[in-house]
Amino acid sequence: MMRALDLAEAIEAGDLTPATVLELALEAIGEREKEIRAFAHLDIDRARMAARACAGTDGLFGLPVGFKDIIDTADLPTEFGSPIYKGYRPKADAPIVLMTEAAQGVTLGKTATTEFAFLNPAPTFNPHNAAHTPGGSSAGSAAGVAAGFMPLAFGTQTGGSVIRPASYCGVAAMKPSFRLLPLQGVKPFAPLLDTLGLFGARVADVAFGLAAITGRDLRIDGGDFGKPTFGVTRQPFAGEMSREANAALDHAIAALEKAGIAVREITLQPIFAEAHAHHRAINNHEGAISLMWENARHRDKLSPILRDCIEAGQAVSLAEYDAARSVANKARKATHRVFEEVDALLTFSAPGLAPGRDNTGDATCNKLVTLLGLPAVNVPAWRDAASNLPMGVQVIGAFGDDQRTLAAAHVLEQALAGQA
Amino acid sequence: MMRALDLAEAIEAGDLTPATVLELALEAIGEREKEIRAFAHLDIDRARMAARACAGTDGLFGLPVGFKDIIDTADLPTEFGSPIYKGYRPKADAPIVLMTEAAQGVTLGKTATTEFAFLNPAPTFNPHNAAHTPGGSSAGSAAGVAAGFMPLAFGTQTGGSVIRPASYCGVAAMKPSFRLLPLQGVKPFAPLLDTLGLFGARVADVAFGLAAITGRDLRIDGGDFGKPTFGVTRQPFAGEMSREANAALDHAIAALEKAGIAVREITLQPIFAEAHAHHRAINNHEGAISLMWENARHRDKLSPILRDCIEAGQAVSLAEYDAARSVANKARKATHRVFEEVDALLTFSAPGLAPGRDNTGDATCNKLVTLLGLPAVNVPAWRDAASNLPMGVQVIGAFGDDQRTLAAAHVLEQALAGQA
Repeated sequence: MMRALDLAEAIEAGDLTPATVLELALEAIGEREKEIRAFAHLDIDRARMAARACAGTDGLFGLPVGFKDIIDTADLPTEFGSPIYKGYRPKADAPIVLMTEAAQGVTLGKTATTEFAFLNPAPTFNPHNAAHTPGGSSAGSAAGVAAGFMPLAFGTQTGGSVIRPASYCGVAAMKPSFRLLPLQGVKPFAPLLDTLGLFGARVADVAFGLAAITGRDLRIDGGDFGKPTFGVTRQPFAGEMSREANAALDHAIAALEKAGIAVREITLQPIFAEAHAHHRAINNHEGAISLMWENARHRDKLSPILRDCIEAGQAVSLAEYDAARSVANKARKATHRVFEEVDALLTFSAPGLAPGRDNTGDATCNKLVTLLGLPAVNVPAWRDAASNLPMGVQVIGAFGDDQRTLAAAHVLEQALAGQA
Repeated sequence: MMRALDLAEAIEAGDLTPATVLELALEAIGEREKEIRAFAHLDIDRARMAARACAGTDGLFGLPVGFKDIIDTADLPTEFGSPIYKGYRPKADAPIVLMTEAAQGVTLGKTATTEFAFLNPAPTFNPHNAAHTPGGSSAGSAAGVAAGFMPLAFGTQTGGSVIRPASYCGVAAMKPSFRLLPLQGVKPFAPLLDTLGLFGARVADVAFGLAAITGRDLRIDGGDFGKPTFGVTRQPFAGEMSREANAALDHAIAALEKAGIAVREITLQPIFAEAHAHHRAINNHEGAISLMWENARHRDKLSPILRDCIEAGQAVSLAEYDAARSVANKARKATHRVFEEVDALLTFSAPGLAPGRDNTGDATCNKLVTLLGLPAVNVPAWRDAASNLPMGVQVIGAFGDDQRTLAAAHVLEQALAGQA
């Protein structure tokens, strides 16, 4: 994988240039993109021109960045993973693209997404085992970072579309606090849930990228954030977890304990199970509204699974939707008490290894944290020897406490590497 | 003015048809549109076809509806009041357009907006006095409803862009609770503040329109909602109010008291003055992000006042922005106590009569309620004999309590008409 922080330091030191880093990325892409299909659109000439023009003196130091293909770009097609938008070119760039470029990021291309960031699979393959999905909906961003095609790539999460593919592909990724990254120019699905996130090789790389792009104090390399306390929740309301998911979580707990870091099982208040169950009403109701035009004018071009979701959304009563918003608000308030007891929550990233390519896996471990708007980080924690598939665990922090959440995830990552 | 509720009842009774109502609208437009300039785009043939095709059996019964020209329409240009988007045709309709059409509304045209719904004036004239502004940013929707061009028209409010032009133009209008109406496909300015609203002749017309479009229990005609209690706040933190604004508010209070309705002056907690002051940081910071592409690529085509706002937004520190969000959250929570004491707040809609056409007036009376996300209704309350300009007052309710807010505004409207 391309490590953003190391590459940026090498550029700063004069050992690499934005152009040479781009060539490293293009080499990896040349070798494996045909088999992985991480990109929806790639304009190599344009990226080379941008890399040559980039000073590489600050921010992202000219590193190449991928954008999920539901993020508007004026100079590259934006197709939302749907034939309805074949060849569509938005008028304007989304702010996140311009913020990235203003921070000396080089736009490499658009990464493959499931149809409108819902469940119909993208054409992408899991880099660790081609018989398996990379997850969704941010399929190309997760797979592309895992395959070393780029050091950083943006995705979005409405259910579990950042953390889940990161777990399946064995990369670090963060879904920051709700509204930390601007959603303007990003195709909405459920505005109350939609959140931009970033994929990178390690936690420190993701933190570096988010810090450079937002101008916020989010870096965790070099700093001393002390020893966090972890509360483990197995989210019993999220259904049954596989042997592999439990192995990853147990492995993470053991690594933390070995490193002398406090870990204890905690029981979440009942309001959180309730909130988990209400994610669906908000997701489907708002999804049906967001895709009203596509459903009214191009229903024949929507996948059956998306049509079903829209119908389910149309069937959600306003009372049910309002109740879900109200429960979500109560649950958000209740998170304060959780983080009085522990610095971070540790839980599953996904209920198991990446399934086959006919579906993108299950977001059940991620719905609650998305609804709560809390920062969440995937940390690769374990690998299944038989399938070669990785399995991550999820670190969750208090709302707005993104840097300490990253720091806690970093501590876990170090512990897993035997370096804490 | 065209009264939505009466027209719908006449269509239901078979006395009018959607097509004949449209001709009434087109007659008024033919007479005065050249002098008022309420429309950015009008496609009469298309509207006639839609009216003829409309069953007129339910919902809006085929009434013509205007949409502010920051709301995406696939079949009509959407120019955001900016030369950058001259002739721009979005790919898809915004959900609010499709919801309106699904509710048997006939899309009449796009109403003139200030540049990106900020402060640079639209070409529209105040129907009551052509030397004055109709207000902004929803200039065409307010002026068009006031001139009888259509019974209902949508606007948006980020500062005071629904309530203020409604006051200047002498029409009823509601800015509902935050997120009651879907913002997908509406050009964002400040996503934490942006709210869709609806203009109509009277409060009952607005309530009828919102109910038909959302499917929510929002109608107030026919129902008995009891006698609300009003708390008057003069929003001392909002600056000095004109003689005319005070005359309108005093007139409203006197009318309520005469009708035997409880009205008392209340003092808002200091957190609300603080929240009012923080509106600016959120508005400008988020505005600078929303218009990042326009500012980066077409700065020469932005008005000086918008360029200044974007620069001010870029100068807002992240700490300042975060603090503003935090204060807004605290103030939102504090509203619960306010509405334990009274059913509705009564305050100014604007600091005075519509000013001249070189500016769109001041949103100072509306910023707090927009930031709080509370439902607000303008009720025309007074008229200045010398200028013929109207002056409204603002009724504000608890979050999510949109129907009771409309009911309270209706009671005030009746009291002002001597009918309570």
